[in-house]
Amino acid sequence: MFTGLSAFPLTPVTPAGFDERGFIRILERITSAGADSIGVLGSTGSYAYLTRPQRSRIAGIAKSHAGNIPVMVCVGSVSTDEVLRLADDAQAAGADALLLPPVSYQTLRDDEVFGLFETLMQHVSVPVCIYDNPGTTRFEFSDELHGRIARLPGIRSVKIPGVPSSPDDARARVQRLKSTLPDGVTVGISGDASAATGLNAGCEVWYSVCGGLFPHAAKEITDAAARGERERVVQLSDRLQPLWSLFRKHGGSIRVMAAAAGALGLTDPDCLPRPLRPLSAGDIADVAAVIRSLALR
Amino acid sequence: MFTGLSAFPLTPVTPAGFDERGFIRILERITSAGADSIGVLGSTGSYAYLTRPQRSRIAGIAKSHAGNIPVMVCVGSVSTDEVLRLADDAQAAGADALLLPPVSYQTLRDDEVFGLFETLMQHVSVPVCIYDNPGTTRFEFSDELHGRIARLPGIRSVKIPGVPSSPDDARARVQRLKSTLPDGVTVGISGDASAATGLNAGCEVWYSVCGGLFPHAAKEITDAAARGERERVVQLSDRLQPLWSLFRKHGGSIRVMAAAAGALGLTDPDCLPRPLRPLSAGDIADVAAVIRSLALR
Repeated sequence: MFTGLSAFPLTPVTPAGFDERGFIRILERITSAGADSIGVLGSTGSYAYLTRPQRSRIAGIAKSHAGNIPVMVCVGSVSTDEVLRLADDAQAAGADALLLPPVSYQTLRDDEVFGLFETLMQHVSVPVCIYDNPGTTRFEFSDELHGRIARLPGIRSVKIPGVPSSPDDARARVQRLKSTLPDGVTVGISGDASAATGLNAGCEVWYSVCGGLFPHAAKEITDAAARGERERVVQLSDRLQPLWSLFRKHGGSIRVMAAAAGALGLTDPDCLPRPLRPLSAGDIADVAAVIRSLALR
Repeated sequence: MFTGLSAFPLTPVTPAGFDERGFIRILERITSAGADSIGVLGSTGSYAYLTRPQRSRIAGIAKSHAGNIPVMVCVGSVSTDEVLRLADDAQAAGADALLLPPVSYQTLRDDEVFGLFETLMQHVSVPVCIYDNPGTTRFEFSDELHGRIARLPGIRSVKIPGVPSSPDDARARVQRLKSTLPDGVTVGISGDASAATGLNAGCEVWYSVCGGLFPHAAKEITDAAARGERERVVQLSDRLQPLWSLFRKHGGSIRVMAAAAGALGLTDPDCLPRPLRPLSAGDIADVAAVIRSLALR
């Protein structure tokens, strides 16, 4: 399950609370497109804003609507004790894998992050993906630390943020990381605008926000990458530049994806947990126009 | 309660869990020194690593051991809903004031942070202090936003991180902020190494990590500041340079204060919640040596 397209859906949270029907509608788009895995409660899935009971319930709903597509559940928390409780809940809900970001409050040291993963791996029976996302966790991994953690039994993938924009630099960056990882641990790209460069640089999986709402568009890209069609990968991603531009304009993808889910009628236009707020009406109209013009699905 | 010395105690969490007896011993040092207020569950109080029931219990213990010293309770969480629940708990425990940091996961926009404070102020009856600490929250306040939030009824103080090291620059910085605040809203310095400069620049209160464990040393400084003895403030702080050096060396104060609490026999040397880990034995010995040489109390 740590190759191909891993779709990361939004978790719609409207003023009335978690929107279960909207979430199921989003999941159905992903299953109908045949994603290789589903990553629920990632950053775009707003795990950080939800209670433990909400996260447990959402993992269960994902599992019961995923068909035979494996489900990875993010168990991030600043507290190791809470990570273990969330891991218990996710496993009880049937999670096929867990995703762990080293969420920081106090700045973490390398030995503390290693200790966090070591404690989790001693506690769980399903495979785990390392979630490297300094923009939200504030922790910067070294390749050496990735390698040290990846040698813990059960680690199966590393989710990295963007790669350098030059194809040669991107390939060098991915190869340097891979040289520290044991066989069988894949590298996955996130940061959707970097996906084509990352896949062409040797990443085996796209942990994709775009794929959480537009799985057909994302799967075309990972399918082309799997066939080695590097130019086609770039073309398909370049076509989505208006979407990547919206992500840049709004300081990340989550508010854009929330606006898109609302524009598609999948949930309420106001579907982000507070303190997050929806884009302005004008910006939402721009998002809707981009979806229409690209015929995104 | 938003002037003078506000002491921010460590919350000791040993491998056996929250160390209530150790916490009470730490509180007793603060009350015996006559701090002007106690700020529990701040960053050094590890609020971010504790569950809601733990935070409620700790607020109650602080209140019942604070004598007539007012207690401020930090209610930080990335989720607005959780902030409101924590505020309910803190008020039920008898908190005299609340402290709110805009803890970020997704990067927050100014209107989102304003909305967070507006929602809290509509919900609570006790005064609130704005907690500006970009090092842990990842949110950078503008003076304009401070002023806008400070005009909400019930806001009584702004806790700022360090000030520029030059006294003139520090005074200009504090005056610029004060010009945006309504009368009756104080400015408090944190970042202990900056305290003397901040107090001499016009800050009315020191939100003090040092004061959480060495309240006599901290109170000497705020007492001198209250008497307008600016040179004495600088002298007293300069004497504590070996402590500030340890804070710098270890990337912040929390691991040093944990080592100090252990060295003083107040709690276990391993008293930080995971994933945080104690300093090495050698570094703990260095901390103990500094406490002894400065006769800190």
